[in-house]
Amino acid sequence: MSPDAKHVKRQQFLFLTREGDLSLQVQLAAQLKDLIKGGQLGAGDLLPSSRELATELKVSRNTVVYAYERLISEGYLSSQRRSKVYVSDTAKELRSAVQRNSAQQAAAPTVHLPKTSYSDGPKPFRPCQPDVQLFPLALWNRLRGRALRKTNRSLLHYNSDAVLGFRPLRENLAAYLRDSRGVVCEWWQIAITTGSQQALYFLAHLLLKPGDRVFMENPGYSGAVRAWASAGATIEHLPIDAHGMVFPPLEDASVALMYVTPSRQFPTGASLSLARRLALVNGAVNTKTWIVEDDYDSEFRYVAPPLPSMQSLDSGNRVIYVGTFSKLLFPSLRLGYAVLPKSLVEPFAELKTVAEDHGPMIDQATLAAFLDSGAFYSHIRRCRKNYAERQETFLEAIGKGSLPLEFRYRDGGMNLTGFLPVDCDDLEWSARLQKAGLDVPPLSQYANSPTERGLVFGFTAFTPAQIRHGVETLLSLRLDRPAN
Amino acid sequence: MSPDAKHVKRQQFLFLTREGDLSLQVQLAAQLKDLIKGGQLGAGDLLPSSRELATELKVSRNTVVYAYERLISEGYLSSQRRSKVYVSDTAKELRSAVQRNSAQQAAAPTVHLPKTSYSDGPKPFRPCQPDVQLFPLALWNRLRGRALRKTNRSLLHYNSDAVLGFRPLRENLAAYLRDSRGVVCEWWQIAITTGSQQALYFLAHLLLKPGDRVFMENPGYSGAVRAWASAGATIEHLPIDAHGMVFPPLEDASVALMYVTPSRQFPTGASLSLARRLALVNGAVNTKTWIVEDDYDSEFRYVAPPLPSMQSLDSGNRVIYVGTFSKLLFPSLRLGYAVLPKSLVEPFAELKTVAEDHGPMIDQATLAAFLDSGAFYSHIRRCRKNYAERQETFLEAIGKGSLPLEFRYRDGGMNLTGFLPVDCDDLEWSARLQKAGLDVPPLSQYANSPTERGLVFGFTAFTPAQIRHGVETLLSLRLDRPAN
Repeated sequence: MSPDAKHVKRQQFLFLTREGDLSLQVQLAAQLKDLIKGGQLGAGDLLPSSRELATELKVSRNTVVYAYERLISEGYLSSQRRSKVYVSDTAKELRSAVQRNSAQQAAAPTVHLPKTSYSDGPKPFRPCQPDVQLFPLALWNRLRGRALRKTNRSLLHYNSDAVLGFRPLRENLAAYLRDSRGVVCEWWQIAITTGSQQALYFLAHLLLKPGDRVFMENPGYSGAVRAWASAGATIEHLPIDAHGMVFPPLEDASVALMYVTPSRQFPTGASLSLARRLALVNGAVNTKTWIVEDDYDSEFRYVAPPLPSMQSLDSGNRVIYVGTFSKLLFPSLRLGYAVLPKSLVEPFAELKTVAEDHGPMIDQATLAAFLDSGAFYSHIRRCRKNYAERQETFLEAIGKGSLPLEFRYRDGGMNLTGFLPVDCDDLEWSARLQKAGLDVPPLSQYANSPTERGLVFGFTAFTPAQIRHGVETLLSLRLDRPAN
Repeated sequence: MSPDAKHVKRQQFLFLTREGDLSLQVQLAAQLKDLIKGGQLGAGDLLPSSRELATELKVSRNTVVYAYERLISEGYLSSQRRSKVYVSDTAKELRSAVQRNSAQQAAAPTVHLPKTSYSDGPKPFRPCQPDVQLFPLALWNRLRGRALRKTNRSLLHYNSDAVLGFRPLRENLAAYLRDSRGVVCEWWQIAITTGSQQALYFLAHLLLKPGDRVFMENPGYSGAVRAWASAGATIEHLPIDAHGMVFPPLEDASVALMYVTPSRQFPTGASLSLARRLALVNGAVNTKTWIVEDDYDSEFRYVAPPLPSMQSLDSGNRVIYVGTFSKLLFPSLRLGYAVLPKSLVEPFAELKTVAEDHGPMIDQATLAAFLDSGAFYSHIRRCRKNYAERQETFLEAIGKGSLPLEFRYRDGGMNLTGFLPVDCDDLEWSARLQKAGLDVPPLSQYANSPTERGLVFGFTAFTPAQIRHGVETLLSLRLDRPAN
């Protein structure tokens, strides 16, 4: 093909306009690039001189000179032979790379991913879900707007000082934890995270090395299992009785970390007795073992305030207290926290800097105002009242049936474990409930080795009518008789 | 002390009220607990019978029975000797634990932490900071409100399907990246993160094992260095020239991962040439090496569109494209993303589930709407126009001085590196600027081993007047003469 033929072809493709945002130079460079990528201009093709092309396109010569220079610097064109400009050799490679990529993408296999749905809330009786309809969203939004106005957009800035969280939030949270849970800490010992899961993950990578032993409750919280396992720890699953986790003398255990849910053991609901709390904390101090206390729903006690937190009993800086706002406010907020012994504050901040830097500021400022205004406390009170009623409704409704469910621990929380006789297959019961549209996990699912059988019911996210209706459906299934 | 004396004392401390939220039982249990914790009731002390105390307090006997049972179950009281109730032995331990803890906390040393300030934005000429005053915050808030109303609070729910992000955001982002950067991907290949730093951290822990070799640019982005180092990688720092990173043949390099900022090398501003892009991508495909392409500010090109992304040239699924909204919208939003080869989607989702689960939904839904409405594109255009002016203002102002600063790469971005002659001590210059209230990092700070000297100037977050004023201050320091 002669340069002339190419010339004609090129004219068909180049179209510059003086309207719009882009300068003529930019348009020309981009369009030449497209011609090269599309293969209309091939490696070694000679381009017209800048003077020729400028005349042809009715633009200044500088426009063309500039565009050529740009493409030369980018490697699309070359000008080895003084003043003559060619399509460079790399252009050929570029074209085949683009083609290969398109072909490869089109032919890629479909990856199976679960269907994504955003419109549905949890189904009855999904455990540990708050009722988001109780949340004072309008007030929250007003506080958010006020925080933004008051700070004149300074909340939008990057803030390396806030890697562990927005200071007023940490201060208000420290006061709340002191008053409500006896947690003894300064504001700067609090690290704000995206939730308790992130806190557990960071703690795992700060405190554990591969092969370290970790004590967990069995059944227990699988998110914690995954966090410790991700740091290479060996997990020992300890049994639960009516007084919580049963553990051997720590002096002989050579364990690096213990994870406990003392307020209400997850998922059974047993409370760790005071004697065991003291034994655990004293043992941890003597053996320099870490205790991670996950206090995931202690705000919801319907009959009495909870026992003192283990953090409040700790005289040796071994207890890390972990909590979340997901269950108090709304799950998609993604704000939780860890109260760190002083020695861990800086290592935690360093890890957080590497792993993600600071969290979203506007939400944190809103939560700080929410705590400060007292709205947080009213909200907890309102939830507690509603949840207590719902628990009663649930127990009353399910008591009318004859299923052999034993609800041992009913003093608080967002879920109720109904224990089953050993010959009941809780996995099968749960599967039958699933088919009927009910989301009731089997106790066995949380267990590492065989423990008791049971079903874990949440009741907090559902209205009394939904609860009664759900229980009716459940009872109609006659789970105690074999499925057809 | 006789039981009677104790009895009198107890009366002084117990005060039950029928007003307020708490039941009489709850109040009684809590107050007895406080007496035990405070030491007014000691281990072994006999409590009055439930009948006696009920009469004394003018409450029903059941109220007292209940409170006693509660405290027995919690370990504060015991009733070994039938019907008689005593303060248990663990109570003593509890008291000393609480005292030790208070003493220990009070005596703790003060940890030195940097002063926290939220009211100030970045100081001139902090690099890579957007002007948050340009952000259409009112529109953003309207879109947020609309998203919340439209979805009837479903955005507040937990959503395990969204561990890699809110689907509409991923869809809109895929379209944007395709159009603007030629990034070839399906929506589900996009993982939303809290920023590019989180993406780098997760990639480090997914793709690297201790001892693996990583190529980085020198000077380069220290956040990435920290991410790779946290996974135990050995980092090799490669030099930069006018065409970007200079690298050896990959076939001989036995390297696991290469981190590059091809659009505008951070912090120098050099663009990786097309020839090198192709060589890197082809080498990576042949040697099965990962490339992490950090495209941190390619939206801001003032003279021409950027080169095709390396992801768009990749025919072998080796390039992971990483980006952030912090620099486009506002830094405290904390939303970034990684475009993953298909093989990495599920491993990334698994790691994210362990490390933090899904991110905040409301912000993600707002951003999805912001992209969908076109406001995102108008915002980028507005920023680009302003930033181009500011760059010009900066270059013009600093050009009036006689400092030996050479601004080689001025075609885009949010920072300008002024290269200095080798005999200039950029660390000292930067320190002198710091004292004068100017935040201009030295190029050496980003370098692992000695490279060129220079100063890295940001200009995007400052008005033309601030820029001119800042440059005046800078020039008045006469940095080319020794400090007094």
